[in-house]
Order: sequence, then structure tokens, then C-alpha cells
Amino acid sequence: QGARKIAEGDFSHRVEIKQRDELGQLADTFNEMGAGLEERDRVRNLLGKVVSPEIAEELLSRQIELGGEERVVTVLFSDIRNFCSLCEKLAPGEVVALLNAWFTRAHEVIEHHGGVVDKYIGDAVMALFGAPLDKPDAAGRAVGASLDLQQAVQQLNKELIADGTPELNIGIGIHTDRVLAGNMGSASRLNYTVIGDGVNLASRLEGLCKYYGVESIVSEDTRKQASAYAFRELDRVCVKGKQQPVTIYQPLGPAQQDDATLARHQQALNAYRNRQWQRAVRLFSTLAREAPSDRLYQLYLERTRALAQQPPGPDWNGVFQHSRK
Amino acid sequence: QGARKIAEGDFSHRVEIKQRDELGQLADTFNEMGAGLEERDRVRNLLGKVVSPEIAEELLSRQIELGGEERVVTVLFSDIRNFCSLCEKLAPGEVVALLNAWFTRAHEVIEHHGGVVDKYIGDAVMALFGAPLDKPDAAGRAVGASLDLQQAVQQLNKELIADGTPELNIGIGIHTDRVLAGNMGSASRLNYTVIGDGVNLASRLEGLCKYYGVESIVSEDTRKQASAYAFRELDRVCVKGKQQPVTIYQPLGPAQQDDATLARHQQALNAYRNRQWQRAVRLFSTLAREAPSDRLYQLYLERTRALAQQPPGPDWNGVFQHSRK
Repeated sequence: QGARKIAEGDFSHRVEIKQRDELGQLADTFNEMGAGLEERDRVRNLLGKVVSPEIAEELLSRQIELGGEERVVTVLFSDIRNFCSLCEKLAPGEVVALLNAWFTRAHEVIEHHGGVVDKYIGDAVMALFGAPLDKPDAAGRAVGASLDLQQAVQQLNKELIADGTPELNIGIGIHTDRVLAGNMGSASRLNYTVIGDGVNLASRLEGLCKYYGVESIVSEDTRKQASAYAFRELDRVCVKGKQQPVTIYQPLGPAQQDDATLARHQQALNAYRNRQWQRAVRLFSTLAREAPSDRLYQLYLERTRALAQQPPGPDWNGVFQHSRK
Repeated sequence: QGARKIAEGDFSHRVEIKQRDELGQLADTFNEMGAGLEERDRVRNLLGKVVSPEIAEELLSRQIELGGEERVVTVLFSDIRNFCSLCEKLAPGEVVALLNAWFTRAHEVIEHHGGVVDKYIGDAVMALFGAPLDKPDAAGRAVGASLDLQQAVQQLNKELIADGTPELNIGIGIHTDRVLAGNMGSASRLNYTVIGDGVNLASRLEGLCKYYGVESIVSEDTRKQASAYAFRELDRVCVKGKQQPVTIYQPLGPAQQDDATLARHQQALNAYRNRQWQRAVRLFSTLAREAPSDRLYQLYLERTRALAQQPPGPDWNGVFQHSRK
């Protein structure tokens, strides 16, 4: 009877036999084992919380070995852009509560799109799509998650405003690359994660959001693999630690048939790249007038006007150098 | 008999009763429970590896709640200063192997000194002293760990040179501060860690190692609490994101009775602070001649010569502004 209950998964069941003979001893052992199994479930549950359930499965199903394998992974970095100023305005406990409120939503969104939270680093979230398990359309999932993360922030901000708490602003960087995925660390303190240049690039792209006045930036490699979404080309850049220039994009939403504004933005960008300064200034001016709060048009207006006054040398290739981290 | 074996912790023991009656069913349940208990140990062991045994205990012993408590913690950041150039010279698998070889040693040293590895972030290690459990002399432990980490790198480098692998260089930053410690994240994906300005400062100090040409930098708050060690004062600085200037130090080793060179360095530094440029140049020149590879003396020679030529305004307070991360 007790055995059956336990076999059915009810580990809290205890056999009540108070005898000092063999049967009593058996009952004691049975009860101890039941407690042990309860603990197993508790520990297993906890393991799935401190890593992610997917990574916990991966760790439990294989012999744990330090080392990695190369695989294509989409890495998403999200961080709170005004975190320092939030910290100044709030009591420490409020900061933690706010951060956890945000992390809880971010985690839900990432998981909903099939990603896993790799780790929290201060106020930042690092998430993986396509690792530890292969996922079809990992890049598209990450882009979808970035759009929903921005929605989740808006939603959270509504509640924060109602409470008189300052709003959050987040920035997101996404890049798809061949990276090293595996168990990093020491045999007795390890961490399933991904490392490599590609990971750093995702983090660098996140750092550029403020400069372009956008909420998310994805690399060309991510954009190519996320054809269900529409993007606005932001720039062609060199970032610190990368030799090759990278074209970067802002995800806008689901891909549409036609977007006239987007087409005009691309024309303006082409004019800039082709050194047609006057034409670029004219096109960006019109766009800026239509969307005065869009920092990107202002940015290009300034750049193009400066270049029109002092045209660059013949080696100018339109690549913008971001030297800062 | 079987019950006794299991009670003694031998969960691999199985009862061999092949009967289709109640006793047979009991034996089956018994065996399943045994397997379950083996799994519990495996999961528990794994949990202690993905967090740290100390943090695992902390997580298991309390009801898990998101949120933190303020406490004084010493945070140590260590990262590989030439990691990018290593990545270029090595195959991806070699990078992971090298990184894990280093992390394994770093983890040993940190644990030996009573710290816990909070997480690995790329090629960096973040370690805590004084959390999750209070530790007497947390600051001293961290300083001791930093000295041993440098020794461990030297040891590893000897082996790497023998293998023809490029050497590692690490930088370490340590700061002791009141931070928020607790479970960060979402209820279903959490992380025991510390957050706050103090954590960022430890990371910033690590970033300054290259500038000063030293292997480790500790803040004044750490130095004050680590009286068993000798330190060399490096500078008084403002780092990005901190209003208050911080005096920073290089840990040298166990505190000694007298160190004549150190006393002369402090004299030179005092001369610099007191705007006695010629005296400072003379003192730093002598020190630089005695230790030509010591970047710090060169740095102060350059600074002092420049200041002697163009004396700063009356608001100069000797605080050096580090604007970069």
C-alpha cells in the first residue's frame, strides 16, 4: 500500500509501523527513502532553476565533461540602460525588487520563444537560442523575443509609473555566430555557456543601442536568418575587437509587404554611401521632419552635413568606427 | 538486509526477489527507490557544481525567495588580459581547453581561501568572499587569493611554454563594499549573486591593471581590512560611474617590517600630491632606474614632468580621472 503510493510518485507518504523488529526496521528505511526521494525532486527542481530546465536536462543526461563543441548559436544580450540612475533614486531593496520584476518577465518572454537564460550579469540578461538544444529558426526566435521584451518593458513601465517608480529603458543586442558551447569552468564548478568573439559582438551591439537611439540591434548574420521580420538598416560599423565591418539592423516587427518610409530610409542611406551628400541631406531632412524623435535621422543628418563640408578621402567606405566598448 | 544496505548509503544495492506477489512488488518499489536515491545524490552533486557547494547549501536550506539583503562582501574579478590575442592564435578547442585549465586552478585557489566562484563571464571569473556565508577576514582572504592566483598563472604558464602555447596574463580587481546579496532573477530561473555599485567597482579596478602595469588592484576599503598584507599605493582615481575618488593599491605580499623601496615610493607620491614636481621627478627617476620594467614609475615620471611644465590649477587634487570602462 505504502509501496504503491510511493511508486505513484507520492513521496510524502509514510508507512506507520511502530515495531522494533525487522518489519519495523523496513518501515523506517522505507520512510527514509521516501524523504530522500522528496529531496531528489526538490534538488532537481532547484537545479532547473539555477541553470535552466533545458541545461539541467543536458547536464543530467550526459556524462559531465569540461569542454565545448562549436555550434551556431544566436546570443541575445539585454541590459537596463538607465540602471545606474535608477540605483541612485531607489532604496537597495527596491532596486532588487525592480530588477527581479524585470528578470521574471524577461525570463518568461525568452522561454516563450524557446530561448534559455544563460545568466544574469548585474542588470543584464544573457540568453541563448539554439543551445544547448538545436532549435529551428533560432535567429527568428531571438528577434521575436527582442520585440516581446520591449513590449514587456512597456507593460512593466505602466505599472511602475502607477507606483511612482522610475521607468526602465532596455537595450538589446543579438548576433548569430559559430561559437563554443559547453561546460566551462572547473570539474567541480562548471557552467554550461557559450564563449567566443560572437558572444562579445552581441554584447557590443547592445552597447550601441543608446548611440543609435534604438531599442534593439541585430547583426547581419541574425537578420539573414530571421526572414519573418522587417528590419531597418542602421549602419555599417567596426566595433572594438572585430576586424571585419558588420552591417547592423533594427528589428521593426513582422515582415510587411511594403513600407514606404523604410524604402526612403534605404534610399537616403544609399545616397550617403555613394557620397551624394546633398541628396542624402535632403532625404534625411524629410525623414527627420516626419519623425522628429527618431535619433537615427538626426545622426545621419549631422554626419552627412559634416561629410559634405569636409568630404572624406577615397578610402572612405562608409564604415563607422566604434572604438569604445 | 537490502534495507540495511540502503540505510547505510549504498543506494546501488538492489533486492533480488522475482515474485509476482506483494513481496515481489515491494522489492520492485524498493529497487526503484534505490535508483531514485542514487539520482538524488547525482543531482545534488551537480547542483553543487553549477553553483558552488556553499551556495547550493544556502539554496537548499532555506525557502527560496527572490530578493536580497544588504551585506558587506569582498568581490574579486579576474580576467585574462590577452584573451583576444590568444583566441586568434589557437584553435577553438584549444581555447576552451586553456580556459578550463585556468578556471580549474582559479577555482581551487579561490575555494582554498574560502571564497566562492560566483560565475564565469567569458574569460573572467567573479568570486565572492563573505557571501553567502559570513567569513572572518573576507578582505584578507581575497587578497591572499589574488596573490595565489598570480602564482597559479605563473605555474600554468611554465606548462604552457613547454607545450608551445602562448602564455596567459591575468588582471585582478578587488573591492569590499556593502552590496545586495541574494537570489536574483525570476522564481523559475534564479541565481544567488551580489549586485550594486561595489560590484562594478571591483570590475573597473580589474580593468585598470593594464594601465598601471600591475597584476592586481584593490580598493582602499579592501586594503583597510587586509592588514596582514603589504600594499603599494597606486593612485587616487575617479572611475566611470563613481562620484567619490577611490585610493587604489597593489597587493605585494605578506606585511613586512620595513620596505625601504616602498617608503621611497610613498615619499615620491607625496611629493607629487604636494605639487613638489622637481622633487617628485627626482624621486621617481631613481626608482625607475632601479626597476626599469616597473610601469608605475614611468607613468608618474611622465605625469610629473608634464605637470611641472604646465602646473595644474588650484582645484587640482591629485585625483586621476579614468573615463573609460
